[in-house]
Amino acid sequence: MKAAINTIQGGVTAPAGFKAAGTHVGIKRKRKDLALLCSDQACDYAAVFTTSTAKGAPILWNQQVKQESKKIKGIVINSGNANACTGFPGLLHAKQMAETTAAMLGVSPLEVMVASTGIIGVPLPIHKVKAGIRNIGESLAADLDSGTSAAEAIVTTDSFVKQMAVQIEIGGCMVTLGAMSKGSGMVHPNMATMLGFLTTDLNITGELLQKALSESVDETYNMISVDGATSTNDMVLLMANGAAGNTCIADSSDPGYATFVEALSFVNETMAKQIAGDGEGATKLLEVQVKGAENLADARKLARAVVSSNLVKTMLFAEDVNWGRFVAAMGSTGVQFDLDKLCISVNGGEGDVCLLMDGTPYWTAEEDCAIALSSPQISLMVELNSGNFDATAWGCDLTYDYVRITGSYTKRGAVPIKVEGVA
Amino acid sequence: MKAAINTIQGGVTAPAGFKAAGTHVGIKRKRKDLALLCSDQACDYAAVFTTSTAKGAPILWNQQVKQESKKIKGIVINSGNANACTGFPGLLHAKQMAETTAAMLGVSPLEVMVASTGIIGVPLPIHKVKAGIRNIGESLAADLDSGTSAAEAIVTTDSFVKQMAVQIEIGGCMVTLGAMSKGSGMVHPNMATMLGFLTTDLNITGELLQKALSESVDETYNMISVDGATSTNDMVLLMANGAAGNTCIADSSDPGYATFVEALSFVNETMAKQIAGDGEGATKLLEVQVKGAENLADARKLARAVVSSNLVKTMLFAEDVNWGRFVAAMGSTGVQFDLDKLCISVNGGEGDVCLLMDGTPYWTAEEDCAIALSSPQISLMVELNSGNFDATAWGCDLTYDYVRITGSYTKRGAVPIKVEGVA
Repeated sequence: MKAAINTIQGGVTAPAGFKAAGTHVGIKRKRKDLALLCSDQACDYAAVFTTSTAKGAPILWNQQVKQESKKIKGIVINSGNANACTGFPGLLHAKQMAETTAAMLGVSPLEVMVASTGIIGVPLPIHKVKAGIRNIGESLAADLDSGTSAAEAIVTTDSFVKQMAVQIEIGGCMVTLGAMSKGSGMVHPNMATMLGFLTTDLNITGELLQKALSESVDETYNMISVDGATSTNDMVLLMANGAAGNTCIADSSDPGYATFVEALSFVNETMAKQIAGDGEGATKLLEVQVKGAENLADARKLARAVVSSNLVKTMLFAEDVNWGRFVAAMGSTGVQFDLDKLCISVNGGEGDVCLLMDGTPYWTAEEDCAIALSSPQISLMVELNSGNFDATAWGCDLTYDYVRITGSYTKRGAVPIKVEGVA
Repeated sequence: MKAAINTIQGGVTAPAGFKAAGTHVGIKRKRKDLALLCSDQACDYAAVFTTSTAKGAPILWNQQVKQESKKIKGIVINSGNANACTGFPGLLHAKQMAETTAAMLGVSPLEVMVASTGIIGVPLPIHKVKAGIRNIGESLAADLDSGTSAAEAIVTTDSFVKQMAVQIEIGGCMVTLGAMSKGSGMVHPNMATMLGFLTTDLNITGELLQKALSESVDETYNMISVDGATSTNDMVLLMANGAAGNTCIADSSDPGYATFVEALSFVNETMAKQIAGDGEGATKLLEVQVKGAENLADARKLARAVVSSNLVKTMLFAEDVNWGRFVAAMGSTGVQFDLDKLCISVNGGEGDVCLLMDGTPYWTAEEDCAIALSSPQISLMVELNSGNFDATAWGCDLTYDYVRITGSYTKRGAVPIKVEGVA
C-alpha cells in the first residue's frame, strides 16, 4: 500500500525545529557562498560520503565526526571552493570551519559537519569564511526564506535552486521531510554525486536512519550521471530531530519505517532527476530503465553505462537516430547479456517506439525514434529477458554548452566557440 | 641494449610477400570503404579483440577463425558500417564477406578474417560489399600506393590516414614490420580501441607472435582514450609470413624475439599516440605518466582515468588551470594512494612545471601551467612515491568539434552550434 505523500512548499526548514541561513562572504564574486543548517537540539543523523580515494578535507573531517559523535547540531557549507587537494592546510581549514561554527552555536566542534564545493586545489580563503560564520548566526531562522537562502548559497553551476519538502503521517503524527541539493557537473554514481542535505522531524534511531539513507541513495543519487566524474567532496546528510513527537521508530518492521522510506525515496528520486536534468549545459533528461537482469548489480551497471556514455549523450543532443550506441554502451560494461533476447524501446512522451525486438532492429521506426529523441524528457526501456532484476538511471545530453561551462570553471575565463557551423 | 629501428616509408605492404588494395563500393557516399590485405602464402597470425559483451558480427566470425585456423591468408575490411547489433543477418553477412573473399583468393573461408567499422545497428549493404570484393582482387598489389589505398579505405572520422613501417635486423636478415590503423571516436582501453592491422615478414611461431602482440597492446592501444567508449568491433591483427628468411623464432629467450618486441612496441605506441591525438575534434594530445604505484594494474588504472576524464578533457581544451581535476580523476578510480606523497608536474615543451609537491600545491606556477596547457602536446607526470610500477596513457581534449562530430554520425546531419559566445 502506498502512503499518502503530500508535497508542500519549502525545503530544509519545513520540518519543525530546523533553522537555516545563507549569505555572501566573498569566495564567489557576488553570489551567496555560505550556508548554515542546524537543528534546535542536537539530533540523530545519517550520512553517505564520496567513494573517491582523493577525498576532500571536509569529507575527512565529517568521517571523524561520524566516528565520534552519535548526534550532531548541524552543518556549515561553502560554495566556490572545495577545500580539496590543497595540502596540509586543507584539514585544518575544515576543522576551523567546524570550530568557528561550534563556538557561535555553543556546541562541540565534533557536533558540526562541514561541506565545501567548488574549485579543487586552491586554498580556502579561511579568514573570509570564518568571518562569515561569525555573522551568519544573526540571520538563522526557521522560515521558508531562510531555507531558500541556504539552498541558494550551496549551488555552483546549477541553473536553478533545488529544494523540496513533503509531509506524511506516521503513528498519528504529521512528519515533514525537507531537502536541498546541489548538482550540475561532476555528478556520477558511487555516491560521489553531489551535495544533498535532508532534514526531518521524525523520531527514529540513528541506525535505522542510516539504513534508510544508504538504501535510498543507492537507487537514486547513485544512479545519476552528468559527466562520469566522481567528485572529491560529495555527500548526503540526513538529520532527524524527533520534533514531530511520534513514538521512536526503532525497528525496520515498524510500518512507520516503510512510510518514511517511501517518502525519502520520493524526495531523493525527485532531487536526483532534477540534478541529472540540470547537468552542465544539458538540454535533455534521459531515463534508462533496465529490466530482466540476472542480478541487481548488473541491472544498475547497465543502466548507468547508458546514461554515462559520451556517445549516447552527444547523440541525444543531436537527436541523431544512432541507437546502436545504447547497445555499445551496455557491451562496454563487461556484463554478459544475450543480444538475441534484447528488446529496446524509446519514449519521448508520445508512446513507446520499438527499436530492437529480440535482437532484431526495427528500422521502420526511424522517424518515430527521431521524434522521441527530440523531446526534452526521454525514456529508454531495455528488456534483457534473462532475470528478475530491474534498475533505473538518469542522465543528460552532452552539449556545446557543457564544453563551454566545464572549460571555464576558474577565473581565467571561457573559451570562445571556435568551430564554424557544420563541415 | 636498444635495437636499431629504422622507420621507412610505407605501411602494410612494406614487408615482403604482402599485397593490399582499397576501393569504393558505395557504403559511404564518396570515399573508399573496402580494403583487402593478404599474404602471398597463408601465414601465422596473432589477434586481440574487443572486450565488449556486445561484440559485432565480424568479431564473432574472427573468434571462430582463431579457434579453427592455425594460419590465415588475409583480412577484408569495410568502413561506413560496423555490421554490429543488426540481428540475425549480422553473422551471416560477416561470413559472406569471408566466403566471397576466400572464393576470389582460392582459399578456405576460415582463412579469411573480417573487420567492419562505422555505424552500428544498420544492416550491412551486403550486395554492394560482395560485388566490391569480387572486383578488388584486380587492384591487389604489393606497392606503396596499394598499401596507402587500403589505409585510406578503413578510416571513418579520422582526420588523417595512419600507416607506418620499420625495419630491424634479426639473425642477419632484414625484417620489416608494417602497420595501418583507424581510430578517432570510440577509442578507449580494454582493447576496444580501434582497428589495427600489422604485417611482418618475420619467421616466428604463432604462439610467440600472440604473446608479443598481447603484451604490446596492453601498454599501447589499451592505454589510449578518446571518449571512454569501448566499441563493439575493434581488433588488432598481426600477420607474419616468414618471407624475411630468418631462422624461425620459437622461444622468447631468442634475442631476435626481444628485438621484434621492441620494434612492435615502437610501432604500436606511435600508432596509439596518433590515434589519441586524432580523437574526434581533438586539438591537443595529452600524455600521462604515472610513476611509483604499488602495482602495474593501479598505475594503468590511474593513468587511464586522467586521460578519460571529461573534466580534464574540457579543462585542456580551455587551457584552464584547474589541475585539481587530475587528482579528482585519479581519486574516482578507487585506487588507494597517499595524497601527502603525491607530486604532479606538467610539461608543454618548455620544461617541467611543478603543480603539487608532496601533496602541497605550488600556486605560484599558475602562469607557467597556463603556458604548458596551451601547447598542442602536453605531458603530465604523476609521482605516487609508493612503489615501483609505472604506466603511460594517452588522450586528447574534449572540444566543441567533438560534440558536433559525434552528434552527427548518421546521415541525419549535424547540429548547428546554438550557444551564443560566452555567458
